[in-house]
Amino acid sequence: MNDNFFPMTVPQIDPAPVFELFRGNYATELLTASVVHFNIFEEIGPNRIDGEILRNKLGFHKRSWNVLLTSLKAFGLIEEEDRKIFLTELAKNSLLKSAKHSIAAYIGLSAQAPGVIEMVNRLKTAIPIHSDKPDVGVAFIFREGIDSAMDKTESAMNLTLSLSGRAMNVAPVLAQKYPLTNSNLFLDVGAGSGLYSIAFLEKNQALNAILWDGPEVLKVAQQFIKQAGLSDRSNCLSGNMFADPVPKNVDVILLSNILHDWDEPECIILINKLAKSLPKGGKILLHDVFLNDSLDGPLEIALYSAALFTLTEGRAYSKKEYQLWFNAAGMTLVEIIPTLAHCGVMIFRKD
Amino acid sequence: MNDNFFPMTVPQIDPAPVFELFRGNYATELLTASVVHFNIFEEIGPNRIDGEILRNKLGFHKRSWNVLLTSLKAFGLIEEEDRKIFLTELAKNSLLKSAKHSIAAYIGLSAQAPGVIEMVNRLKTAIPIHSDKPDVGVAFIFREGIDSAMDKTESAMNLTLSLSGRAMNVAPVLAQKYPLTNSNLFLDVGAGSGLYSIAFLEKNQALNAILWDGPEVLKVAQQFIKQAGLSDRSNCLSGNMFADPVPKNVDVILLSNILHDWDEPECIILINKLAKSLPKGGKILLHDVFLNDSLDGPLEIALYSAALFTLTEGRAYSKKEYQLWFNAAGMTLVEIIPTLAHCGVMIFRKD
Repeated sequence: MNDNFFPMTVPQIDPAPVFELFRGNYATELLTASVVHFNIFEEIGPNRIDGEILRNKLGFHKRSWNVLLTSLKAFGLIEEEDRKIFLTELAKNSLLKSAKHSIAAYIGLSAQAPGVIEMVNRLKTAIPIHSDKPDVGVAFIFREGIDSAMDKTESAMNLTLSLSGRAMNVAPVLAQKYPLTNSNLFLDVGAGSGLYSIAFLEKNQALNAILWDGPEVLKVAQQFIKQAGLSDRSNCLSGNMFADPVPKNVDVILLSNILHDWDEPECIILINKLAKSLPKGGKILLHDVFLNDSLDGPLEIALYSAALFTLTEGRAYSKKEYQLWFNAAGMTLVEIIPTLAHCGVMIFRKD
Repeated sequence: MNDNFFPMTVPQIDPAPVFELFRGNYATELLTASVVHFNIFEEIGPNRIDGEILRNKLGFHKRSWNVLLTSLKAFGLIEEEDRKIFLTELAKNSLLKSAKHSIAAYIGLSAQAPGVIEMVNRLKTAIPIHSDKPDVGVAFIFREGIDSAMDKTESAMNLTLSLSGRAMNVAPVLAQKYPLTNSNLFLDVGAGSGLYSIAFLEKNQALNAILWDGPEVLKVAQQFIKQAGLSDRSNCLSGNMFADPVPKNVDVILLSNILHDWDEPECIILINKLAKSLPKGGKILLHDVFLNDSLDGPLEIALYSAALFTLTEGRAYSKKEYQLWFNAAGMTLVEIIPTLAHCGVMIFRKD
């Protein structure tokens, strides 16, 4: 570990462009899968059709379909109006196999690329990559009965450290943009490396934090907290956010890049559980990436959503989706603040 | 085949954005290979160094290095001044492993992805993919002693047809933008599907054409020519452009997307051979993609260059590189005209 990590500082430059380049493969894979393996463009043809009917016809899980359709819209190939989807001129001219200027067969040259085949299988099953082999893959999530990379000391620590680079950039920006001046006890749900807690603790001298995550992951957080000299105001609490009760006396909860690892039912369960645990006026900071409310981009978030889909049980969600779930759990949106690396924070207050 | 192909028409829309999405994987692969497998950013560190010295130190073939360095410049990660390369602020802040805000370990999560491993091997050897297994891959080129997909009837026809979709878009634009009003006999070197010849023949009623390519590839061209009703003005000539003499009495030669399949020595040999065969005032139309003269982009051509590198013995070249070779062969640049799908044509006239 770098001994220069703490105190955390806001980076000179947003690493977002590097992440965008890094995720370029998902464009190749989703485009090729759609053209060659799923025949999406032929299925739609010149018509305006109900996306749900097509989804059912093709047998896609809702989550797979969301990731695929959002990307194809972000690619400028499909549009939606009045709940009907249809091909753009670009798709009609370039990707319909019978079109005079079709390049569908050119796209077909990558039909058998390993990444394409992998994506096709993911889209068919909606089961994340390597969920059977946690040692080789990157399964970010815990689930009863499924081995997770997060359960084994070495893989959990390596993965948590690998992911922490992004938090090292984004957490100090979040803590700077949203000072928790009136909060006493902060709960970091799925704390991971603990860097978000550390950023808030460094910024707010009166704040105490509970870092809640699996025991293996918390080994990284404990090292970072010690290094940052914040052990006296931090409590690393090993637990399972779905199975265990929410820690008491908390007035602000952080969900940073957690909900995007889970499918809709789990998100709703977790939001309700956390909201219920808060006193009136208590807050949840939902820090994540956000799709457009129309689920048609932005392109970089659509591709990140494909990454999340591949590696976890989740995907990217829109602000509208999150707001609906939080409202139903008795919480009101107060503010949205962009942070860094495509992320932003939605602040919800309990009614 | 579509019975509506001929006469060819200019497409309503440029398919370029689809090709760009299609090649996104090369961004993932080159970035990850550079960060994880070749340690490029650590090698450069805070210094300004001679790229050739670094290339030799790392043992890269010139072609591999060109593809890699051009991409890293196009990614905004490396710059060059006074023949020294150095890291941009983005690379220093985000990709140096020791940097406080490094996301190098995050990029490392894709270190073992099959596409990344494949690219690492290609970059190390500078040998195109599947050159040992022409049936499964896409080897566009002929070379004595190496089986090519272009040698076997079925694979040659499938590959030629797959590639023809792009020509169906671009060829009519080229023929429209550069009418061959004063030409009599047109030589299409590496004619492939023959669609460029067909576009020029359709546009120029007095023109005759020789389509020069391997015998298996020409089967596709023959079908298209028959369909277009142009058999009386076309001559499909089976041959090898390196080994066989250039057909006589030609006054204009087309090299459309040919030179980018070959390494520099082969390009120079072919250009000299073709130039020598022409009468004074004879022309070569070099239709291809072009890198910036500074070999630092554009991004979409840098990624196409990576595709060419992977699938052939070539890469994308700059206008400056082409001009140098043609000038040395006794030809002068007359005009450059952009066409479609990232392509353009350089018109050279024999002095």
